Amino acid sequence: MQLGHKLSFLIKNTPIIEQQSVLECAINGVIDYFASSLQASNETNVKKLLAWINDEGGHNRAWLIGQKKQATSRQAALFNGFQAHCLDYDDVHSDVRGHPSAVILSALFASIRLDDSLTNLDGRRFLTAYVIGIEVMALLGRCVNPEHYEKGWHATITLGGIAATAAICYLYDEPFIAQALTLAATQASGMRLLMGTPIKFLHAGLAAQHAIQAVDWLRAGISADKDFLDENLGFLSIYGQGNDDLDLTVWAKPWKIIKPGLWFKTYSYCSAASYIADAGKLLYKHPKFNVDNIKHITLFFAPVNSDAALIYKQPLSAEQGRFSAEYILALILLGIAPDFEQFTEKTIADNIQNLMQKMQRSYAIQLPPHPDAYNKRYVVIEIVFDNNQKISQRVDIPKGSPKNPYSQQELAAKLFAALPNEVKAQQLLSDIHALANGMDIKQLLRSHWQRL
Amino acid sequence: MQLGHKLSFLIKNTPIIEQQSVLECAINGVIDYFASSLQASNETNVKKLLAWINDEGGHNRAWLIGQKKQATSRQAALFNGFQAHCLDYDDVHSDVRGHPSAVILSALFASIRLDDSLTNLDGRRFLTAYVIGIEVMALLGRCVNPEHYEKGWHATITLGGIAATAAICYLYDEPFIAQALTLAATQASGMRLLMGTPIKFLHAGLAAQHAIQAVDWLRAGISADKDFLDENLGFLSIYGQGNDDLDLTVWAKPWKIIKPGLWFKTYSYCSAASYIADAGKLLYKHPKFNVDNIKHITLFFAPVNSDAALIYKQPLSAEQGRFSAEYILALILLGIAPDFEQFTEKTIADNIQNLMQKMQRSYAIQLPPHPDAYNKRYVVIEIVFDNNQKISQRVDIPKGSPKNPYSQQELAAKLFAALPNEVKAQQLLSDIHALANGMDIKQLLRSHWQRL
Repeated sequence: MQLGHKLSFLIKNTPIIEQQSVLECAINGVIDYFASSLQASNETNVKKLLAWINDEGGHNRAWLIGQKKQATSRQAALFNGFQAHCLDYDDVHSDVRGHPSAVILSALFASIRLDDSLTNLDGRRFLTAYVIGIEVMALLGRCVNPEHYEKGWHATITLGGIAATAAICYLYDEPFIAQALTLAATQASGMRLLMGTPIKFLHAGLAAQHAIQAVDWLRAGISADKDFLDENLGFLSIYGQGNDDLDLTVWAKPWKIIKPGLWFKTYSYCSAASYIADAGKLLYKHPKFNVDNIKHITLFFAPVNSDAALIYKQPLSAEQGRFSAEYILALILLGIAPDFEQFTEKTIADNIQNLMQKMQRSYAIQLPPHPDAYNKRYVVIEIVFDNNQKISQRVDIPKGSPKNPYSQQELAAKLFAALPNEVKAQQLLSDIHALANGMDIKQLLRSHWQRL
Repeated sequence: MQLGHKLSFLIKNTPIIEQQSVLECAINGVIDYFASSLQASNETNVKKLLAWINDEGGHNRAWLIGQKKQATSRQAALFNGFQAHCLDYDDVHSDVRGHPSAVILSALFASIRLDDSLTNLDGRRFLTAYVIGIEVMALLGRCVNPEHYEKGWHATITLGGIAATAAICYLYDEPFIAQALTLAATQASGMRLLMGTPIKFLHAGLAAQHAIQAVDWLRAGISADKDFLDENLGFLSIYGQGNDDLDLTVWAKPWKIIKPGLWFKTYSYCSAASYIADAGKLLYKHPKFNVDNIKHITLFFAPVNSDAALIYKQPLSAEQGRFSAEYILALILLGIAPDFEQFTEKTIADNIQNLMQKMQRSYAIQLPPHPDAYNKRYVVIEIVFDNNQKISQRVDIPKGSPKNPYSQQELAAKLFAALPNEVKAQQLLSDIHALANGMDIKQLLRSHWQRL
């Protein structure tokens, strides 16, 4: 049996998860997903995509989250993925080197037909489908990375479409999982080049659309009878280094949503910059710190390409600042909260520019990584003042990462911040938690789609 | 200026072509496109996709060719590309190593809004847009091939979406060509693995859809402000060997639709097998030929991967036979015309199976290629009979290729065969020819969409 068929067999034969610790991780992912998506529901780019969907038209089947509007399944997948990732506020996963939930949950939600009132969908089956999506994405990610990322691929979309397809196939117990994975794989695209543009966010939507298209076209009877992990011409030979590194024996041992786990954000910049931000916040509070007397600042990165995502050393706009260690550090050292407003299309103020120009990156020191570090990463920031005094701060495990997680209260607060109406937020939070007890996911959507 | 912007500049500043020899090549491409598409309009897979489009719904904007039906622009792109390539009966191009017109013309036709009666679109502008699409696809193809193809990419889709985007941008004189090429490039996907399944044909449709999406989303105001030929993270560094081989100085010198030119087919199998078919037809007429006394047959290919597309040495179904040198040769030597019926989902008859088992491929002889050969290709077939007598036949320039082209009459006959009603076919043929005199392409669509 070829590997793609083996993977399909694992997906198909997964029992509905009842283990509370796994279900809780999935619940946290769903809470964070809604918080990230709803926070973006009034963004200019979101409104533009909405206008395009209205112009294209189509039968109303699925919910556009937070918009009191339904659309076709593909439009909903595209839209929900775009909105969920639109502020770069959604979760990441270290095996993936990308954003899993914005794709997987967007595709799952888009696959649920609100016009079909006959069938129920057990919340635990839904959560299991989500966990399976993360598992597929993480296993593929481990296999192709870091070469995949370094070559220029954007794993959120290249791996996300396949993962989301696996999730949908599980949710509906489709008979054609192997073919669906193939049809998703042959749609896998997305260049990291697009980071710093709104297309990065559209990639999440496109990946979700790829999944809807894969499942829809197979349901329509068009066959794709090949194994996507074919040894010679398959996915991993094109997008990775071949099949050798794909280890299916670690399937669900443990589920990758638990370990290494999802990495949540309460900020709107690239998670690779969170080390910088955490270190910056500590330095800002240091008794010797004085922003007016800084001579120069060195950002020491672990010498393993750990700043590859932070592509802008001198960002030209605040929007590019999401991917700039220098911009984010300058904000924090100037006492400016790095909130949503700081990552819009506006230009960068002179005081920020001046401070960024005092910074340089270095890979010259090789420190032993923390035993719990992600991909052996760490950051050390050293500030030298005009009087040649130095202060420095090292960060190994940033806040929000699975080993330094937000509390339940902090995650809930993210959801409440995204929904000005507290009653609605509380009701949504309760309903999400009820999924772990088997609440019908369709019921959740029906209850909330016109309220949020 | 980066290369993607240079390419965009070339596209934008191309004057409408008035040279008759170029326009004639484009006219032949359009005739062949309609013939290939209309021949497939009742195929089972086409009907399945049509049912899916009806189920998705949407505003009627563009014509589904040969279906007396309109749909959204994206649906029309997907459908028209699928139908045009559905019998593998459409043109190929040796620089591309794939099918250009099924993508480019499908996207161009899908971009034309039948609900907008205000603006005209000069037929020569339309033909120029098509010529530009071929040019972009050929230049990219020269740069990435043969590695791109050999790695496992399906150039019809990976390069087709970018080419079709260039064509649409020219047709409507869009201000955002460079961004549109980037947005098309980041959608580029498609594995050669899928050859032998209906997804190969869907790839042509997906590529056309990529182009519609790229242009539509930019029109909607979502920006993609990067150069798709960025040196470090751009398209050619991911899908090829980097930017070094891209030669923009040969732009339009001459137009690649003229030289090397389009390769037309009057058969429904892979063009790489046309060498085999031509040799087989000559051997079948040889006075010493007797199919009952064959001991064994050797298929000598030029030792340059020239049979890479002919992936099935022992096809399991007649459908796979499109990509099988052995299957097509067996049909011809058994006196069975290799027409559409021989490449359906049916099983393969015993006499064909038996003859295929007498065949083997060889790369052992290195003959000097014909000076006009495509990619140094040739084929020699040697038949050894039971009495050890041998006959052999070499083919260098197969029928239908640009250097051994079909006549105007033969191409017209292909269109007439696809349309049982001779009056309709004649009218369509006249209107296509009128494009070269500036006939409004919208007028052509309006005249024919309910008739074909």
